[in-house]
Amino acid sequence: MVSPRVYEAMRQPIVGHLDPFFFEVVEDVRKLLAYTFSTSNEFNIAISGTGTSGMETAVANFAEPGARFAVLANGYFCDRLADVARRHGSEVVRLEKPWGEVFDDQQAREFILREKPRTVAYVQAETSAGVYQPGNAICEAAHEVDALVIADCVTSLGGMPVMVDETGIDIAYSCTQKGLGCPPGLAPLTVSPRAWERLRARTRPVDSFYMDLRLLDSYYRDHKYHHTASATMFYALREALAIVREEGIENRWQRHRRNHAAFVAGIEALGMRMHVAEGHRLWTLNTPRVPDGVDDVKVRQRLLAEHGIEIAGGLGSLAGKVFRIGLMGYSSTEENVARILDALQRSMK
Amino acid sequence: MVSPRVYEAMRQPIVGHLDPFFFEVVEDVRKLLAYTFSTSNEFNIAISGTGTSGMETAVANFAEPGARFAVLANGYFCDRLADVARRHGSEVVRLEKPWGEVFDDQQAREFILREKPRTVAYVQAETSAGVYQPGNAICEAAHEVDALVIADCVTSLGGMPVMVDETGIDIAYSCTQKGLGCPPGLAPLTVSPRAWERLRARTRPVDSFYMDLRLLDSYYRDHKYHHTASATMFYALREALAIVREEGIENRWQRHRRNHAAFVAGIEALGMRMHVAEGHRLWTLNTPRVPDGVDDVKVRQRLLAEHGIEIAGGLGSLAGKVFRIGLMGYSSTEENVARILDALQRSMK
Repeated sequence: MVSPRVYEAMRQPIVGHLDPFFFEVVEDVRKLLAYTFSTSNEFNIAISGTGTSGMETAVANFAEPGARFAVLANGYFCDRLADVARRHGSEVVRLEKPWGEVFDDQQAREFILREKPRTVAYVQAETSAGVYQPGNAICEAAHEVDALVIADCVTSLGGMPVMVDETGIDIAYSCTQKGLGCPPGLAPLTVSPRAWERLRARTRPVDSFYMDLRLLDSYYRDHKYHHTASATMFYALREALAIVREEGIENRWQRHRRNHAAFVAGIEALGMRMHVAEGHRLWTLNTPRVPDGVDDVKVRQRLLAEHGIEIAGGLGSLAGKVFRIGLMGYSSTEENVARILDALQRSMK
Repeated sequence: MVSPRVYEAMRQPIVGHLDPFFFEVVEDVRKLLAYTFSTSNEFNIAISGTGTSGMETAVANFAEPGARFAVLANGYFCDRLADVARRHGSEVVRLEKPWGEVFDDQQAREFILREKPRTVAYVQAETSAGVYQPGNAICEAAHEVDALVIADCVTSLGGMPVMVDETGIDIAYSCTQKGLGCPPGLAPLTVSPRAWERLRARTRPVDSFYMDLRLLDSYYRDHKYHHTASATMFYALREALAIVREEGIENRWQRHRRNHAAFVAGIEALGMRMHVAEGHRLWTLNTPRVPDGVDDVKVRQRLLAEHGIEIAGGLGSLAGKVFRIGLMGYSSTEENVARILDALQRSMK
């Protein structure tokens, strides 16, 4: 769900992609993204595409043919990161973990020190499994071997702590339609000064023109034409980020945590179990296990048809085994927790 | 300028990217794009990015490392096509022409038969120079040597004839914010059955995941998750294309032609000259020459400050030499022709 304020912002008249007013909006977005990502990075932009374009931008700019690219693989989007890195010529090395489990500090550290990659990627909030991966040990080990760290924050930004600087993440990307409560269409992205050094030293051109961060920097900072950014989507994102700022990022996290806890209590009261162990769960996306004998597709169809609620099924190895129930951004409310618990109970009968 | 109907469509509540309703919208867009591109191609989609993402999608899917990629180069966006093709590993060969001139049939034909490329790219409507490049001879020669043809239709679609089938174009892409009168944010793209054969035979993965047409086909046709398309932008595009259909594509071209002719008559009455020869001019984007002794930057600043009209300056070799004045989509009206002529005259005093 999207805030009415964001819909309202989207119908404001568009201006040109080189209009001084447009760059004021870009500057607001830049500052508000720093706040939302909890970073002092100066380079915070929105890629003109959806979350997956944020992933590909991060990979394309920091993967080079033949260079080693390490993926901590515990879910669908980790596999996607590996696929994208291979397409951009990387030699991909993976550390595996069942979907829904997290890497402990020692495992991550040993893997990174052994493989000595140029770039390490992990998914902070793995939407396919509902698991939150802490990143401090990953970033520390990566920096010891002079690697950069890419973190997928698609399902955490605006809903639970991303903490770019405190964690040590070099490149974080996200989407607009989850914790930020905006329609999809842009991919927020932040890049550390350390990563910029690597980018400036790069001699081989990035193989994507559309996603080339050096060109995007010269567009957004020096106002040199690169592509026609969508004023409409920037209006929406600015409004959504202004709402984050008004609520206060910590308050927003607490709202998500509280509603997640209420949801889990309700699920357990229904006799169901969560797939992910306590303490490692996302507050934005819940993955209760489908009870034995229950057909998850039928339940989801009934939820949509009879209650107007859209939830997702499991992906990959979790297909048919978990429900994926989002409670994020504008939709993370006490009322929605009560609604989904009630509707879920009725739809499983 | 954007039609109020399109703004209204954009504030409709979003649905999920795998929602049955979303795919109804996608299907409407697919059919309406076929009508607007004048094609019987079945594959007509909108890339989740701006016009430049359409260009990169076309190139990335049909360029392969080491394969020859021919560019008919007579403007800024031709140079961009060459740059993108090089990034994707192509061996680029170019036929040059001064900005604002067109390639005649014989020149184009000799170049293509001599170079025998795998792919030929040209810009149908070159925004930097205001020139329309006919494509029949290019496509005929290309098909003789078994090459595919990519045409940049960013500034023609919805404003003047694109005629994909009649011309013989294999891959055409455009944007939403010009002839279609929508905000920017999507890139309409059509692919011929001949080009699909090439794509199906391709063994090397496309180096972009986000722009991989085979994955996009399986998303839009088989509803297999690939990325989270923006329902909002699809609502806008569907409404804009519905307006094209209601007006009738031929009527729409004639409206653009008429308003362009009135503009040219007015410019000549002011003692100014058009940069492009008659018969080769875009109806959507006019490039009158900046008169001797006139500072184009000052004129453009006054137009924006005193009249609220944004026009563009020349790019590259035409910087300071031409104005670029758009009269397209919702903005191509008699009133706007009168307004810009009056404002231009006052701003040059």
